[in-house]
Parts: sequence; structure tokens; C-alpha cells
Amino acid sequence: MASSGGRNPELRKDSVSNRWVIFSPARAKRPSDFKSKTPTNSNHLQQKCPFCIGQEHQCAPEIFRVPPDDPNWTIRVIENLYPALSRSLCDPSAPSSDSGHRDIGNRVLDGFGFHDVVIETPIHSVQLGDLSPEEIARVFLAYRKRIEQLASRDSIEYVQVFKNHGASAGASMSHSHSQILALPIIPPNVSARLGSMKDYFEQKGKCCICQIESEDLVINASTNFISLVPYAATFPFEIWIVPRYHSAHFHELDAEKAVELGGLLKLILRKMSLQLNNPPFNFMIHTSPLHCNNASELAYTHWFIQIVPQLTGIGGFEIGTGCYINPVFPEDAAKVLRELLGS
Amino acid sequence: MASSGGRNPELRKDSVSNRWVIFSPARAKRPSDFKSKTPTNSNHLQQKCPFCIGQEHQCAPEIFRVPPDDPNWTIRVIENLYPALSRSLCDPSAPSSDSGHRDIGNRVLDGFGFHDVVIETPIHSVQLGDLSPEEIARVFLAYRKRIEQLASRDSIEYVQVFKNHGASAGASMSHSHSQILALPIIPPNVSARLGSMKDYFEQKGKCCICQIESEDLVINASTNFISLVPYAATFPFEIWIVPRYHSAHFHELDAEKAVELGGLLKLILRKMSLQLNNPPFNFMIHTSPLHCNNASELAYTHWFIQIVPQLTGIGGFEIGTGCYINPVFPEDAAKVLRELLGS
Ligand SMILES: Nc1ncnc2c1ncn2[C@@H]1O[C@H](COP(=O)(O)OP(=O)(O)O[C@H]2O[C@H](CO)[C@@H](O)[C@H](O)[C@H]2O)[C@@H](O)[C@H]1O
Ligand SMILES: Nc1ncnc2c1ncn2[C@@H]1O[C@H](COP(=O)(O)OP(=O)(O)O[C@H]2O[C@H](CO)[C@@H](O)[C@H](O)[C@H]2O)[C@@H](O)[C@H]1O
Repeated sequence: MASSGGRNPELRKDSVSNRWVIFSPARAKRPSDFKSKTPTNSNHLQQKCPFCIGQEHQCAPEIFRVPPDDPNWTIRVIENLYPALSRSLCDPSAPSSDSGHRDIGNRVLDGFGFHDVVIETPIHSVQLGDLSPEEIARVFLAYRKRIEQLASRDSIEYVQVFKNHGASAGASMSHSHSQILALPIIPPNVSARLGSMKDYFEQKGKCCICQIESEDLVINASTNFISLVPYAATFPFEIWIVPRYHSAHFHELDAEKAVELGGLLKLILRKMSLQLNNPPFNFMIHTSPLHCNNASELAYTHWFIQIVPQLTGIGGFEIGTGCYINPVFPEDAAKVLRELLGS
Repeated sequence: MASSGGRNPELRKDSVSNRWVIFSPARAKRPSDFKSKTPTNSNHLQQKCPFCIGQEHQCAPEIFRVPPDDPNWTIRVIENLYPALSRSLCDPSAPSSDSGHRDIGNRVLDGFGFHDVVIETPIHSVQLGDLSPEEIARVFLAYRKRIEQLASRDSIEYVQVFKNHGASAGASMSHSHSQILALPIIPPNVSARLGSMKDYFEQKGKCCICQIESEDLVINASTNFISLVPYAATFPFEIWIVPRYHSAHFHELDAEKAVELGGLLKLILRKMSLQLNNPPFNFMIHTSPLHCNNASELAYTHWFIQIVPQLTGIGGFEIGTGCYINPVFPEDAAKVLRELLGS
């Protein structure tokens, strides 16, 4: 009979998402009689894919590149060739539009929106974490520029920037890239987050992310940013990078802070890769709805980056309940990552 | 340049979960430069695992078996050896309990709860869909019996019954089994579902699941149950089995209806396996909170079974937003499954 793993299980509620997570170290010990998953078998050696420099003709149309008009580009923002939402449908907010079934009992909407790909490097074998802080900063500033363009559309409510790295994190392309999806709705996790942060603000008079620094959860800090494992992390070794100054929208990031953020992200990706053996991962930029501009809403929303290494899958319990089981206590993950590389 | 896949993308909102799903046929066509996933490589041929008949000593303690006390059991309900929640912690509702940190700002709870495994068959190579309707009924009745036992605990708020089949659906054991997790909280998806179904009831005066039958979404129907693809299915080929009579709690199921339900589940598992090449899958029984007993709440909640074949993973977009992208329109999936086997 296995022991129950030392520490007792615990439930913790995250004050940003307002969700309970189950922490259970005993779960980490369970055996599996399925063969272990094959490692991320990307074709890093393949020299050419549509995202490589020189293969631009194989891609959907470009939106912009960095530097502008330069054949030796470092970043390209392009349309996704297989988009989840269509930019060519009638913009439902355009005055002349008669957008078919926009409102049958509020249960169906035309799939209007924008789905872009950000090619982070011209070179197939280079990964985001290989770039310098200045180069990572340029990727952030490309996100910012594209978000600003999308923000001019009244019908776009929210912009989700995210990255999939490795097949088990959902990636279908191995060339380093991220994606930008501009949505005509406010997605459920965002509404839930806003509601929860508003409640916190009303009770305590402070933004809950401004209050988040907790010694035993911090990994690394710089002047304006901090990396930490959240108190009720949904996933083992989940990491957040949070601005230490209050800011509702990611696209307020300026060029100087972008370099600082690039440096911290690079350090965190290196630590994650060392500790967890170059795991597949996702990152998501959590920002505020585009048209959230009144002072009271701006006071309690605060952008941050969530990084999730994909170490274990989920099962029917999580799909059914929306409640997650995490075998690693956040303070333990934070300690390991904090002490790595002696920083 | 690939075409956009015929039909335009569309957003649909599910009236049970109250969530928007993006339908985008174009997404189905995207290429991948990662090697395709290895198929479910279970060790069906291995003769003995802890869940096999004769290996009972390798398992955590038994709660009950069917038939009772019979060495030739057909079903065993046992404790999970690596539980997410602990039954040996002080029951927080027990009058004498002084349960440590039950209430530090409502953000932490002792991990009290029950985590059981239901071994559905004594034989390693037999899968749930191989059983007869009567045998599947006995599995349902074992769930019911265990839920009734758990319902006697005031501190247990919700019981999640679920099944993981195949490694990509999260399973760590290949021997056919399901799990029962009894929780001291009402999980987020359940609260959201209750809220949404309550709103529907208040607006329309009817239970939204009683209203769900829609000709082009139905797969098969029997006297008391119907199988269908929901209007805003989160996953491609997601299937629901719904009682046609109003019932809030799964554990109200009687022995006769259990056989009918077993027959319909068997048919659906066979169709899914034929159409999708024996995919990994999860099923979840969505029921009402245990202590929901007042007439108004009982009027708008209605249990059902959700079956999700695991065909594609998710990525940063879904983790970030809680919004899903489904490349298959529900009416198309329903038509294919309806017409299969000529029924
Ligand atoms: N020549 C070309 N020009 C322009 N664009 C091209 C292209 N060839 C491919 N693309 C696009 O490039 C993108 C690459 O994205 P990723 O590898 O991050 O994951 P993908 O979006 O496929 O799916 C993952 O992320 C999404 C969103 O999280 C999940 O829905 C999904 O399940 C998961 O596998 C794809 O969206 C694809 O459509
Ligand atoms: N000898 C023994 N006696 C008693 N019990 C034994 C045992 N040996 C193993 N077990 C238990 O049997 C269960 C088998 O369950 P599954 O194969 O359905 O998936 P598992 O719970 O491992 O994780 C999947 O489902 C959970 C819940 O959805 C997800 O958190 C997770 O990521 C996913 O992989 C395990 O929970 C294990 O602890």
C-alpha cells in the first residue's frame, strides 16, 4: 500500500479566477500502465516551413512585419490561413451591415473576428527563449501594435494573445510563433475574472493583483515585474509574470518596460526548461476587455502573463467540473524555481 | 491557398453551460508538422493488473462489490489508492470537529472528501461497451448506491462520476473503470450550469433540458432517453444522453430505466467507436448538488450524461479564455451518427 504522500490534500481558491483547486501530493505517485508519451518530436532540423524566411509566398497575407518593408524581417504578423473566425464576414458593428442571424434569442452570432499568427523569428530552429531580451521585447511590441489596430473596431470585445509550444501543448507548427484572436464576445474566463477582481476591490479597496506579492510564492523580480507561482495554481509549475505597477491593458506596455519584461520571460523560460526538461508549454496574456475604459473598471483590472508547462493531461473530472487537481503545492514549485541558477 | 472550408464560422451559446463556442470548419484542414500522436497503446493483452479478479489484495480497501460477498464479483467499488481528497481527515461537518484552517478568508479548505474507483468488469480485456445492457445497468446502479451513501454526509456538496478511457483521455489504468469524487464544494461548472438553467426557467417557465429535443441534433431515442449532439457542442462529436422525463438527480434512476439507459449507451459507444476508430473518450454524469432539495431548484435542474471523444487537444486559446473552437457543426456530427448502423 502506498503512503498518502506526506502532506494532506487541501483546497485553495484563487482570488483572480475565483476557482477552487485541489492540491494533492498523493496523486503524483500513481502508476500508469499506458506507455509514456513520446517527447516533443518537432522537426527542428527541417530547414523550411511556411513560417521560414524566404517562404512568405506559402503563407496567408501579411498584416505587417518588423522592421517594416524589410526583406530581412525579424517578426511577421500574418493572417491565419485556417482561421477560427472570419475577417471577411460583415463587421456586425458597421452601420450598413445587415448581419443575418446576429440575434436569434442571443444564442448565435456570425463568426466575425480576426485570427492572426505572429512569426517570432525568421529561423526555423530558434525558439522564443533563445532570443535576447530586446528581441523578445519586439515580439511584445508587435502584439501591442496589432492589439491597437484591432481596438479600433467597435465590434471586437476582447483580444486573446497566446502561444502554443510543442505538440502536447496543442501546437501544429514547430516554427516559433504565437497567435492573436480578436473576439466579438467577452469570453467566460474573462467575465469570471472581472467579476472576481471587482468583488475583491469592493471588499478590500485594492486591486487583487497589486496585492499578490507573497514571499514564498515569488520566483524572480525586477523593477517593474515579478514572476511567481500563484497561490491556487491550476497546473503544476504554472507561473505568472505580473507588472508591479497597476495597469489594466497589456497594450499600455512601453518599449523600455518591454525589454525588462523580455529579460524576465527569458529567465523564466530558461528555468522552466532546465527544471522540467524543455516541456511543451502555453502562455496566455490576460488583459482587460478593449472597451473597458471607465475609471472604476480600470481600477480593479490588471494584466498579467500566465505560463503553463504541459506536464500531465486532464481527465473527465476536470472536463465535468471545471475544478482541477494539482499534485504540486505552489510554494514548493516556487522554491525550486527561485533557487535554480542561484538567483 | 486553402479555401475557407465552405461554411462560414459561427458562434453559438449553449443554454445549459451558458458558454459561447466557436464553430469553424476551416480549422479542420490545418496541417501539422509534428508527428501524429501514437494510438491508444493500452496493454489489453497483459493478463493481470490490480483491478483484475484475483488481484484484490493489490488494491486499496473495497467499499462494496456486486453481487455482495461473491468471490466471482462483476463490479467492485474501491477506495482510490492515490486519492485527490482524503476521507481520513476530520469531516468538517461533524459536530466535534475543529478543522484547522477551514476558513482563512474563505480561500483554503481541508482536502476532505471521497475518491473511489468503480471496477466495471473483472476481466482485463473487456471494455464498458462490450457489456450487455443489463451489465451496464448494474454499473449505473453501483454509481447510484455509492452516491446514496455519500449523500448521507452533510459536508459533501457534489458527487462527480466520470470515466477516462484511453491514455489521451487521461486514463492511467487500462482496465475498464470509472471514478467517483465526492467534493466539499460545488464546482464552478456546476454553479454556472445551475445559474444558466435557472435563468432559462425564469424566462420560459420550463426546464431547458426538457426542451432540448431538436430533430436535426438527435442521434437515437428510446422511450425514456434520447442521445443527441448539443446545439453548441464544446468538442467535435460530443454526445449527450438525456432522460426525456424531468429528473434532477442521477441517483433517482431505477433498475428498469437503468437497463434502457445501458442499451442506449452501448449503442452510442458502438457508433462512436465505428465512426471515430475507437477513440479515447471521457464521460461525465452531470447531476444536481446533493443538498438541492427545494422544489424550485429541482424544477430547473435535470441530470444528463456527457460523452466526449478526445480527437484533438486544446491550446492556449482555450486555457486562456474558457472558450472552445469546434471544427464540426453539431447537426453534421448528429447526421453521421444517426445514419450509422441504419438505425
Ligand atoms: N501557411 C500558413 N499561413 C498562415 N497560417 C498558417 C499556415 N499554416 C498553418 N497556419 C496556422 O498556424 C497556426 C499554428 O498554430 P499552433 O501551432 O499554435 O496551433 P493550432 O492553432 O494549430 O492549434 C492549437 O491551438 C488552438 C487554439 O488554442 C486549439 O484550438 C487547437 O486545439 C490546438 O491544437 C495554426 O492555427 C494554423 O492554422
Ligand atoms: N491498486 C490500486 N488501488 C486503487 N486505486 C488505484 C490503484 N492503482 C491505481 N489506482 C487509481 O486508479 C485510478 C485510475 O484512474 P484513471 O485511469 O481514470 O485516471 P487518473 O485518475 O489516473 O488520472 C486522470 O484523471 C484525473 C481526473 O480527471 C486527472 O486529474 C488526471 O490528469 C488524468 O490523468 C487512478 O486515479 C489511480 O489513483
